[in-house]
Amino acid sequence: MDIETFLTDARQKIDDKLCALVSSSSDLPYSALFASARYSLSSPGKRLRPLLVLATAASYGAPLEKALAPACAIEMIHTYSLIHDDLPCMDDDDLRRGQPTLHKMVPEWHALLTGDYLLTYAFEILSDAPSLSSEQKISLVRTLASRAGAHGMIGGQMIDLLSVGQTVDWEILEQMHLGKTAGLITAALEFGGIIADVPPDDIISLRKTGLAIGTAFQLIDDVLDYTSTEEELGKPIGSDHSKSKATAVPLLGIHHTKEKAALLLQAAEENLNTLSRPVPLIRALFDQMVNRRK
Amino acid sequence: MDIETFLTDARQKIDDKLCALVSSSSDLPYSALFASARYSLSSPGKRLRPLLVLATAASYGAPLEKALAPACAIEMIHTYSLIHDDLPCMDDDDLRRGQPTLHKMVPEWHALLTGDYLLTYAFEILSDAPSLSSEQKISLVRTLASRAGAHGMIGGQMIDLLSVGQTVDWEILEQMHLGKTAGLITAALEFGGIIADVPPDDIISLRKTGLAIGTAFQLIDDVLDYTSTEEELGKPIGSDHSKSKATAVPLLGIHHTKEKAALLLQAAEENLNTLSRPVPLIRALFDQMVNRRK
Repeated sequence: MDIETFLTDARQKIDDKLCALVSSSSDLPYSALFASARYSLSSPGKRLRPLLVLATAASYGAPLEKALAPACAIEMIHTYSLIHDDLPCMDDDDLRRGQPTLHKMVPEWHALLTGDYLLTYAFEILSDAPSLSSEQKISLVRTLASRAGAHGMIGGQMIDLLSVGQTVDWEILEQMHLGKTAGLITAALEFGGIIADVPPDDIISLRKTGLAIGTAFQLIDDVLDYTSTEEELGKPIGSDHSKSKATAVPLLGIHHTKEKAALLLQAAEENLNTLSRPVPLIRALFDQMVNRRK
Repeated sequence: MDIETFLTDARQKIDDKLCALVSSSSDLPYSALFASARYSLSSPGKRLRPLLVLATAASYGAPLEKALAPACAIEMIHTYSLIHDDLPCMDDDDLRRGQPTLHKMVPEWHALLTGDYLLTYAFEILSDAPSLSSEQKISLVRTLASRAGAHGMIGGQMIDLLSVGQTVDWEILEQMHLGKTAGLITAALEFGGIIADVPPDDIISLRKTGLAIGTAFQLIDDVLDYTSTEEELGKPIGSDHSKSKATAVPLLGIHHTKEKAALLLQAAEENLNTLSRPVPLIRALFDQMVNRRK
């Protein structure tokens, strides 16, 4: 199977599994929760994180079926974080990927609870993931909770909101990127490694790869926030900057931001080279990330 | 050791462990997150759920040290749910246990993220819980995610908010109580059972006990909302009723609500009698729940 076929097939399987996991039973008095979760999960996204889980697991020969539920758990955590970040008390965004954000479709409390549901459900899915040992499942829980937690995604979001209107230095900004963007991308690569039972050295290299590519990804995003059209980006141009958010471009300039991204991509590349297997699927996804226009 | 000494000692150990788990390192750019988490965790509460974990585990002879971290994980989930429920877009409460709610102390986004942090961290704590097998830990994760999730606490909160200004029947109200209040109390009893590796029949009886006592607890709460003084309750009298929330008293009347609660207490009692061990510690906690004045 060639890379494009694998990725197209994997994306379809992820979409189907997400649909299957979020029940559509309408006889429950709280079934509106599942409708709102499906709205946010089906927003036209890249499915980057779950694809990275599947691509990594497949690179080491693990069957896709083992990786599918954990991949969906990561996508749920990603989706919950977008729902909460978009809320009026956080970033107050009306659009996400060109569509109305969840709290524009349902009451604010309903959107908040949908985020809580997806966050909680992700861990239930891991605990029930088929064909994995209890050791593997607990390792997935630890990895996801840690990458999505205070020293990962949530810490990054704290820095982001604390930095509004402040001048922050590069170290703080880097810490924000490592938590907020690189956290779940790293978790995705680590998930693939845990599911495929890779050697410990490979887990370390996958982790280093994730932190580097994730940070590069955010820098590329910061550049795009300045250079894209609104249509390409799916949200207003310069919207992060206009909210007085800390971003790399005003701090480093476009040229230096691109340079830093290139160095990080090189670091990611070098770490991929140390893996015990060739990983063309992961490389293909990285290419998509770097060359994306939206 | 007598019951009172056990409970006093257990409560102190829970407080100490919660403090130890929520780092106070102040050199991180997001350390304000830990300060807000400690504020909410140290609010003067009854520690009912973690005490139930410790009491249940101890009744079967499991060492307190095995149960302490999981007990704190449940208290974190309880605390996150209070923080989110109190937010302006949810119940918009200014007071909780007689003290300002978290979003009155820090910006709303900060309170929201503190809830997300405690929810996520609870699962990390379970994944790292000492002296438990991976099977036990994954069973704790499954139990907590399920009791706190859509078919538990979050579903109950959905019903609660959907019912504002609506007339709901007893079945819907009972489903709300089973999720919103009984969910975590049941998880606490199940946690004790999982930690102490009790026979499967005992897990079932503990579960039935939790669902009965948890629902009874909510009915007693509904009655107190009508009959207490503001000082006793730590929040304005009739506050649930004045928000047009669905509560048992307007639906059933005080007399019938008390009667239903008494029947549920009896069901809980009968289930406790089927356990393979005597459980005076659990009974003592139930007595405190039922006879509480705030």
